[in-house]
Amino acid sequence: MKDTQDAKPDVLVGLEKVGVTNLKTLIHTTWKGQGYYFTPSIEITINLEKNKKGVHMSRLIESIAEAVEEESAKTGSSIEDIEKRILEALARRHPYRRGEIRMETELIIPKETPVSRRKTAEAHQVEVSVIKDDGSYAKRLKVTVFGNTVCPHSMETAGVPHMQRAVGELTVETGFGNVVGLEEMVECVEQSFSSEVYTLLKSEDEKHVVEKMYRNPKFVEDVAREILEKAKKRFRKCRIRSKVISHESIHRHDVIAEGSVQSSS
Amino acid sequence: MKDTQDAKPDVLVGLEKVGVTNLKTLIHTTWKGQGYYFTPSIEITINLEKNKKGVHMSRLIESIAEAVEEESAKTGSSIEDIEKRILEALARRHPYRRGEIRMETELIIPKETPVSRRKTAEAHQVEVSVIKDDGSYAKRLKVTVFGNTVCPHSMETAGVPHMQRAVGELTVETGFGNVVGLEEMVECVEQSFSSEVYTLLKSEDEKHVVEKMYRNPKFVEDVAREILEKAKKRFRKCRIRSKVISHESIHRHDVIAEGSVQSSS
Amino acid sequence: MKDTQDAKPDVLVGLEKVGVTNLKTLIHTTWKGQGYYFTPSIEITINLEKNKKGVHMSRLIESIAEAVEEESAKTGSSIEDIEKRILEALARRHPYRRGEIRMETELIIPKETPVSRRKTAEAHQVEVSVIKDDGSYAKRLKVTVFGNTVCPHSMETAGVPHMQRAVGELTVETGFGNVVGLEEMVECVEQSFSSEVYTLLKSEDEKHVVEKMYRNPKFVEDVAREILEKAKKRFRKCRIRSKVISHESIHRHDVIAEGSVQSSS
Amino acid sequence: MKDTQDAKPDVLVGLEKVGVTNLKTLIHTTWKGQGYYFTPSIEITINLEKNKKGVHMSRLIESIAEAVEEESAKTGSSIEDIEKRILEALARRHPYRRGEIRMETELIIPKETPVSRRKTAEAHQVEVSVIKDDGSYAKRLKVTVFGNTVCPHSMETAGVPHMQRAVGELTVETGFGNVVGLEEMVECVEQSFSSEVYTLLKSEDEKHVVEKMYRNPKFVEDVAREILEKAKKRFRKCRIRSKVISHESIHRHDVIAEGSVQSSS
Repeated sequence: MKDTQDAKPDVLVGLEKVGVTNLKTLIHTTWKGQGYYFTPSIEITINLEKNKKGVHMSRLIESIAEAVEEESAKTGSSIEDIEKRILEALARRHPYRRGEIRMETELIIPKETPVSRRKTAEAHQVEVSVIKDDGSYAKRLKVTVFGNTVCPHSMETAGVPHMQRAVGELTVETGFGNVVGLEEMVECVEQSFSSEVYTLLKSEDEKHVVEKMYRNPKFVEDVAREILEKAKKRFRKCRIRSKVISHESIHRHDVIAEGSVQSSS
Repeated sequence: MKDTQDAKPDVLVGLEKVGVTNLKTLIHTTWKGQGYYFTPSIEITINLEKNKKGVHMSRLIESIAEAVEEESAKTGSSIEDIEKRILEALARRHPYRRGEIRMETELIIPKETPVSRRKTAEAHQVEVSVIKDDGSYAKRLKVTVFGNTVCPHSMETAGVPHMQRAVGELTVETGFGNVVGLEEMVECVEQSFSSEVYTLLKSEDEKHVVEKMYRNPKFVEDVAREILEKAKKRFRKCRIRSKVISHESIHRHDVIAEGSVQSSS
Repeated sequence: MKDTQDAKPDVLVGLEKVGVTNLKTLIHTTWKGQGYYFTPSIEITINLEKNKKGVHMSRLIESIAEAVEEESAKTGSSIEDIEKRILEALARRHPYRRGEIRMETELIIPKETPVSRRKTAEAHQVEVSVIKDDGSYAKRLKVTVFGNTVCPHSMETAGVPHMQRAVGELTVETGFGNVVGLEEMVECVEQSFSSEVYTLLKSEDEKHVVEKMYRNPKFVEDVAREILEKAKKRFRKCRIRSKVISHESIHRHDVIAEGSVQSSS
Repeated sequence: MKDTQDAKPDVLVGLEKVGVTNLKTLIHTTWKGQGYYFTPSIEITINLEKNKKGVHMSRLIESIAEAVEEESAKTGSSIEDIEKRILEALARRHPYRRGEIRMETELIIPKETPVSRRKTAEAHQVEVSVIKDDGSYAKRLKVTVFGNTVCPHSMETAGVPHMQRAVGELTVETGFGNVVGLEEMVECVEQSFSSEVYTLLKSEDEKHVVEKMYRNPKFVEDVAREILEKAKKRFRKCRIRSKVISHESIHRHDVIAEGSVQSSS
């Protein structure tokens, strides 16, 4: 019996991305000798030829299940290793020309408070995507990091600045084999704000952070540019994008700045 | 033929709220002689007796349609007038002991910038609920308003404060006939922050707002308390609740303060 | 005195988009002789030259205020007319090479129930963007419309199908002068589902809709393709994109299909 | 030097809840001999006396850090054990009469597909709260579980039903020492829908699930009632609440049903 999915569709147009999204599962990874557990939200899609009615969706899920089980058993697998293995497992089950898998999760990075030297744990949203296109693999990594902006304009006109929470995003696209660490990406964003932020701050730490903010007034534009510059120096052969949103303390609306550069080989 | 909804259910337990939610429609109101258009998100629910399988959901929708059409044609109807009319229309179609309808929408209030005297329009999230319980009508009004907090603690320890966007909520519960203006509720919240915020600020306005912020350092607790006090003075015979969330500029997390008071008759 | 924004930045990189986002205001439009009120969420951005530190954000807000006031007074202005006027007003206040404005709002379209012929009002999310690039204007229109999918595969294997709510998006990009109606875009999406959906359905209407669903089993892929085909026939000289998400009733995750075509001139 | 937080406030009103929210950290728990890793979103609040200006927020964070470190090192600690330990650690650092901590996270439960017997992992949103009030501890547990509803009314009138994804919530409040398993709460909700749902379904499993759905038509009211009944039988001495939302496939809006019961001692 022929599957409905393999029938000829009424409209003969190929589709770019067909698959499942908002799928959650548990994965185990290893990075620099340390084990991590994640519960990412996953999207996996493949292209659909114009003469096929549908994608066999359960094969996408089976490929995730198979690769997650195999890779989680090993030590030494990163999120992107697991994703590549999923696309390979899928190729054995379902033909496709272009496939893409994305995992969104939270990365907890341990840190020390700046003066009192207490241990804290800082959570950052990360997205890791692997794309297989005509046989070659590429990846896209994105981190979303909290910080702040301190307005240089009001510092000049009022003598004192308004300031606020801001959120910076850094995205890099590069070949699969090019090593780019998510922690290093987080650092590029954190260090571009007026100050980095912390989960725990004792009085002496708070004083240190606040004083640093007043010494580093920055527009959202300044932060977006510094992220680009830091990432360009640090990561080779990458397409680099930054986007910064500042939750203005004197307005109801937000301000944004976005830009992109290509790093040299 | 008997409707499925009127059959006896398998489990003989009464339910407190059954109805529809996330329903959008267009309504037209009049308030102090001025016409307004809203596209609220609506939730309407009634209690369900233990021996009835279900609510006739389409009668809830018909009651909304009927009352919106009738009231919108008139001048002089507020959101709460329309809601009461919906509960009345529903009582003619479907028996219930307790019914509740809530509309969430945005209220645009015109304002002037503090120094340059430009006109601006400020949007606030509002919720208006009418509850009919055993024949008597009550209402619950809620406004969500943006502002800011300026940290008194870091002002003392570092000499300069960190500051950030904050969001204040004020909820009042009172009898249906007790007049409580949403604009006055918005004012209670706005004036409790370190400073009110504006959509448009020219340089001279920005200087004015920033200077005001530095003169009024406030914890999130201070803002929550001032909202309660202002509302208590202004609105009689009300159960009053405030909640303030501050999007800390030195942390990844938010801080909150909540409280409640009863105003005198 | 020179403005801080005009100073030379530390990092000499041009930025693609700088501006404000999540700004709400009230606008009044006219379309086919009928007046409409909207409270859109607005994003407006311009490019920033590499040798300027920042954008004068208040000029973006002033341009919105000016154009909204002028255009709302007229009859005959659509959302895209107001947006073009904002970009023109901005060009007089602030130099830029590329500017873009986007408004997201809800469009209420009156409808009739299929059998009982009652009036209903159906709300659809719409996005209208105007882009000025090197002096020429283009636009991007997007509608997000609810419907449903009925699984052809389970219909074959189980004899009866599972079905669920689905959400379809249609985006068209075209020259500013090319007339493309949002209502016609909504129609393209609605008519591509197994059935259109309604806010109000009496028993006879519900029967009609349910029977139609069973006669029209469709994968998410079928819906995405039909949207593309309908839009291609209806709108000339457009870049057309469709995306459909189905909230599977037998799974925790969603399934998606995306594609694009170019319509002929 | 006296801390700003200990100063007398301008408005002498006590506040019910003051603290931090949207805080993320990594925790390690053990449940029935199995280790789990979570990255919950945490809210922790305490009451504030009317004569104190503010809460020492950093002591809340320190209490979390201390208890998470201590408990994660042990085997045998559940989420609620860690929460109780946090409230105890806090009591040593900061006086309070009533304190509450809530963690929201995802619980992954392994499952087998109904016919093909493949392994799958199903993710459910859970909330675990511990409340200390005048020295005694209570807890509130909530699970949010996906399933579906199949309309009994359209089954009667049209001969075939419409169906859709639905989301069920079960909340229990009880003494700290009363053992209530989150997995058992998930089961109560899953088994109350027309059918449970699965991440992976091969053709034979899909057939089984779809056939089950057609055999079990249920209104959202039926599901809400069955959750209450199942939970009442299973969990003693609990205040039990259920809420079910059905994402109607024939409407743009959702339908809801909510109820509550008390289970016997």
